[in-house]
Amino acid sequence: MRFFSDNAAAACPEAISAIAEANRMDTAYDGDAWSRRLDEALSGLFGTEVAALWVSTGTAANSLALAALCPPHGAIVCHRDAHIQNDECGAPEFFTHGAKLLLAEGEGAKLTPAAVKALIDTVRDDVHQVQPAALSITNATEYGLVYTPEETAALGSLCRDRGLGFHLDGARFANAVASLGCTPADLSWKAGVDALSFGFVKNGGLSAELLVFFRPELAMATRYRRKRAGHLLSKGRYLAAQILAMLEGDVWLRNARAANAAAARLAEAAGADRLVLPVQANEVFVRVTFEEAATLRAQGFDFYDWGPGEARLVTSWDSDPAAVDALAAAIRAL
Amino acid sequence: MRFFSDNAAAACPEAISAIAEANRMDTAYDGDAWSRRLDEALSGLFGTEVAALWVSTGTAANSLALAALCPPHGAIVCHRDAHIQNDECGAPEFFTHGAKLLLAEGEGAKLTPAAVKALIDTVRDDVHQVQPAALSITNATEYGLVYTPEETAALGSLCRDRGLGFHLDGARFANAVASLGCTPADLSWKAGVDALSFGFVKNGGLSAELLVFFRPELAMATRYRRKRAGHLLSKGRYLAAQILAMLEGDVWLRNARAANAAAARLAEAAGADRLVLPVQANEVFVRVTFEEAATLRAQGFDFYDWGPGEARLVTSWDSDPAAVDALAAAIRAL
Amino acid sequence: MRFFSDNAAAACPEAISAIAEANRMDTAYDGDAWSRRLDEALSGLFGTEVAALWVSTGTAANSLALAALCPPHGAIVCHRDAHIQNDECGAPEFFTHGAKLLLAEGEGAKLTPAAVKALIDTVRDDVHQVQPAALSITNATEYGLVYTPEETAALGSLCRDRGLGFHLDGARFANAVASLGCTPADLSWKAGVDALSFGFVKNGGLSAELLVFFRPELAMATRYRRKRAGHLLSKGRYLAAQILAMLEGDVWLRNARAANAAAARLAEAAGADRLVLPVQANEVFVRVTFEEAATLRAQGFDFYDWGPGEARLVTSWDSDPAAVDALAAAIRAL
Amino acid sequence: MRFFSDNAAAACPEAISAIAEANRMDTAYDGDAWSRRLDEALSGLFGTEVAALWVSTGTAANSLALAALCPPHGAIVCHRDAHIQNDECGAPEFFTHGAKLLLAEGEGAKLTPAAVKALIDTVRDDVHQVQPAALSITNATEYGLVYTPEETAALGSLCRDRGLGFHLDGARFANAVASLGCTPADLSWKAGVDALSFGFVKNGGLSAELLVFFRPELAMATRYRRKRAGHLLSKGRYLAAQILAMLEGDVWLRNARAANAAAARLAEAAGADRLVLPVQANEVFVRVTFEEAATLRAQGFDFYDWGPGEARLVTSWDSDPAAVDALAAAIRAL
Repeated sequence: MRFFSDNAAAACPEAISAIAEANRMDTAYDGDAWSRRLDEALSGLFGTEVAALWVSTGTAANSLALAALCPPHGAIVCHRDAHIQNDECGAPEFFTHGAKLLLAEGEGAKLTPAAVKALIDTVRDDVHQVQPAALSITNATEYGLVYTPEETAALGSLCRDRGLGFHLDGARFANAVASLGCTPADLSWKAGVDALSFGFVKNGGLSAELLVFFRPELAMATRYRRKRAGHLLSKGRYLAAQILAMLEGDVWLRNARAANAAAARLAEAAGADRLVLPVQANEVFVRVTFEEAATLRAQGFDFYDWGPGEARLVTSWDSDPAAVDALAAAIRAL
Repeated sequence: MRFFSDNAAAACPEAISAIAEANRMDTAYDGDAWSRRLDEALSGLFGTEVAALWVSTGTAANSLALAALCPPHGAIVCHRDAHIQNDECGAPEFFTHGAKLLLAEGEGAKLTPAAVKALIDTVRDDVHQVQPAALSITNATEYGLVYTPEETAALGSLCRDRGLGFHLDGARFANAVASLGCTPADLSWKAGVDALSFGFVKNGGLSAELLVFFRPELAMATRYRRKRAGHLLSKGRYLAAQILAMLEGDVWLRNARAANAAAARLAEAAGADRLVLPVQANEVFVRVTFEEAATLRAQGFDFYDWGPGEARLVTSWDSDPAAVDALAAAIRAL
Repeated sequence: MRFFSDNAAAACPEAISAIAEANRMDTAYDGDAWSRRLDEALSGLFGTEVAALWVSTGTAANSLALAALCPPHGAIVCHRDAHIQNDECGAPEFFTHGAKLLLAEGEGAKLTPAAVKALIDTVRDDVHQVQPAALSITNATEYGLVYTPEETAALGSLCRDRGLGFHLDGARFANAVASLGCTPADLSWKAGVDALSFGFVKNGGLSAELLVFFRPELAMATRYRRKRAGHLLSKGRYLAAQILAMLEGDVWLRNARAANAAAARLAEAAGADRLVLPVQANEVFVRVTFEEAATLRAQGFDFYDWGPGEARLVTSWDSDPAAVDALAAAIRAL
Repeated sequence: MRFFSDNAAAACPEAISAIAEANRMDTAYDGDAWSRRLDEALSGLFGTEVAALWVSTGTAANSLALAALCPPHGAIVCHRDAHIQNDECGAPEFFTHGAKLLLAEGEGAKLTPAAVKALIDTVRDDVHQVQPAALSITNATEYGLVYTPEETAALGSLCRDRGLGFHLDGARFANAVASLGCTPADLSWKAGVDALSFGFVKNGGLSAELLVFFRPELAMATRYRRKRAGHLLSKGRYLAAQILAMLEGDVWLRNARAANAAAARLAEAAGADRLVLPVQANEVFVRVTFEEAATLRAQGFDFYDWGPGEARLVTSWDSDPAAVDALAAAIRAL
């Protein structure tokens, strides 16, 4: 019974079917019928004209977005616990050709305008220091919190004031949208976001992530960067087809709601005292002693320790209800 | 009836089945059961200990290999018509951080030791010039020729003498092996090759290419570079499973033989006068006038013009025999 | 008696004096009184508003210029014999983060619009190939030829038509201006040049080269790149002072004329039969047998062999007239 | 009366004389008589075989050293206030092709083994995080403290245990040696340092800094990187000559002692209550109110504010004793 990562989940039936559907000859790279529908499909979803590029990983989506927003001699502001800082082996530095990440603080991997300002106001405006060029946030955050549309817009407003590009790492964007009940637009371009890494893999996709530019002109150079980074698949139609299949009928939202609901059940079982942070998406951080963690594992539950005395439980679109109930019961029984 | 690229072909049933088979929860990234079998499976195929890493594209495989063999201040010798020079938007330069490609000449995109020597002997041994660090060849070549084991070994011997790493772009390695009837080992490590981009996508794969290091120690830093380049898929098991499925029962060879046989039928139909080059794999370059090309297209055949008066016909594992026969007849009828 | 490179010449008295003059406390980096006069001084010399940045080497000036004109996924067209291709150890690739150099042909390292067009017209306009973004020429060329204002303008016109940035490697710009008797403006911005590496070191400077942007807005990002590349000297005033001293009273032109005149004397002595190319600046390429070269060396003349049967003789601002006469006589006596 | 930076000081007479002395024709780049003496001279000074390369700036020396010690996918541990982090516009990232700087804490910009361990022990040993490859410290630190030989050796020992390269930014290495009365060897290779940026410019040099490798084999690739970064001056003899002149007769030590002595006089005048940190080299950080700072400036003293309520006073080899006395008196009079 696996609760260690939504990365390890299965692909949903719609994504699998899309593979079969796309398995007929068509043009190579991104000239095929599915890929050519992406811009339109995403423009529809977001209610504004966007440019959308598939890639194979969230790391690629994030890094290509940052390379579009920050020059090699610039800096990207992000949270100290951001995925782009801690879990991508320096991919942002690779794709931006050496930009610097400036690390801001905030509870639950969440940034505020004040925290960002406090950081960038220390940068001297001279050639001896890299100048902030972009802000990157993650929604839902690495700790399972969500930014509301208002919170996002406050950061977007700061970006506009300070001339920063605004990137949103949406590896769990679907979970945030599902949690808040708002529109995708509310959490993105309407709040000032320039580029969104729209995650599908954690949410039931097989191998496709999407980079969405709300300033479509940013996509032009990115198309070259994508090819140059080896991320233009010759049979890209399988990626586009997955994404389209998950957009159709709001499969992406349904999947995210299922994951969030499972997390909510675990949170309820854990209770306020055990919860390290509020549970707003599909991640549950609980306080457990070493012995308690061992007790859970002995019952067949798999999860990550998250620092001393804490554990991370991640649910996914396909979390087995029986397993979730069993884990909830086991937590209650601790 | 498409003959413009094997990149546009379907995925073979074994690859598709592997997707379904891998679609159960497992560890993320490359810690899963399928990925962990790759080193062993490939070591078995090649008859020597290798390290094997999946990636999504041939461009990624090539570039990671070159980055392992050439420092930023080095040079890579390749043919003027090499894919790494002409069709990867500078990916080798991106992954190597700016190494230079030195372009050698040779009929049919094929290099000889003499051609390589003629090029590298012009490089002054001082810090004002980038020093050759690697040789990269493509087998089968971009023009559908194959290097025999002996020809490869002669280049390998030169590499050893001159301290060059030896990379083999094997986007159509299967076609070369099938054409020559030799072992994969004969065309690679036994001939001095250090790193092989072993192509699966053009040969019936869905989204997986393989980078094989015959000096396994080269894989260590490459694992970091792969992650850093956004090429470590979180659900990498789908890639490993495809590759394993195509290795089992020699599906990869069967597919390549089918593509080669279709090309041979076209070559026979074209006849010596029309053929620009001998047909040794799955690409046929024919002399056709503008009007002849139009005539073929009017009958529903799709292909690339390849310079003035020439056309490129590419067959694939799933080339429809009826379409091949029809094209053969149409060429005869010109 | 050294004729092997103007790089080995002494610094002229004006440059040396400038060092002493600048040797008093002032602001660090480029905020000092001398550095602050550069933009104005160069704007005066060129008769248009320019931005001028000192650096320590021509390689740095060239590479910073190219980085300003070409993105990492772009290409720079230059001559096959260009210094940026052959003598800078890949510095353009380093500073541009991996742009590709496309090599055009032409007698005496000189390019024509036809040669440039022939090259760039082969580039497919798709993301699989790096797209030409800049043209770089050298005046005087690596073989001592000069581009006239008209020839330069023809290339500038092509650049404008094709959207290419136009860089001029002017390591021997002074020699070209002196040779042609035109204005510096005629060979640069009036002919469409965007960025000029204005050489001082070969022409009697001590350690200063100048990067001149005729589109001053290009200088902004370059100031960061210069610092980032370690080329912002903390005591930059010594560089600015040298340059100003050599501009004052047209020392730079006087020096170049002296070097050119010395070369002309050698050319006359050599005669048309021995000359590989016309002598238009301060380099003389002569046909000499192995024995003849040995004969000259035995008399104390030092120079480079330049391929089989050729020698390169380079004069400089401080070529000793007696040595020049002696070499002229020795050549005549061969 | 300038106390804002030793970067703004004059060049000492020995350095100026060296320029004149080197102003005769010789071989270009670093093949000249002066440059060829560097390895031997520095090996003598340090009492062990070293490889020594001149460059124009400390930023270049630091970055080349770090590129020799850390791969693009590695990390460099340094202090949060390190010059390489705050004052080089991302040069380490540029030269290393995107390595990450990990920032440790410590009073006065000084690191301890415990602080370094605390930082690197948080790094997971997997491909998702860049792995620490080097440690870089500054002696004297950016806050004017010195590391003793024992403190340096303790860090060197940690580096050996953890497989880290050890870089010493010695922009004020002379001041540290002079302050401690130890040998240069005690603060470098005997304490485990692999590469030293040996500063001359702040200490009376004109334009030369030195990169010293105590593992001479590291110099080989660095010679290519230096050229590639545009740091191989064609008239490099002027740099080598300066350095040799300042080594001869221990001018470098005499200069540093003078600067340190001037700082000591200011420190004494300030008294323990005003001093933010002990004064161990040539920088004095004092607590002054806004009004006090204004009072000093009104008397003609120029210096940097250093955060609220603090000022930085920097002395140099040529600090005018009268000015120092005047400033000391002015501080006392506050």
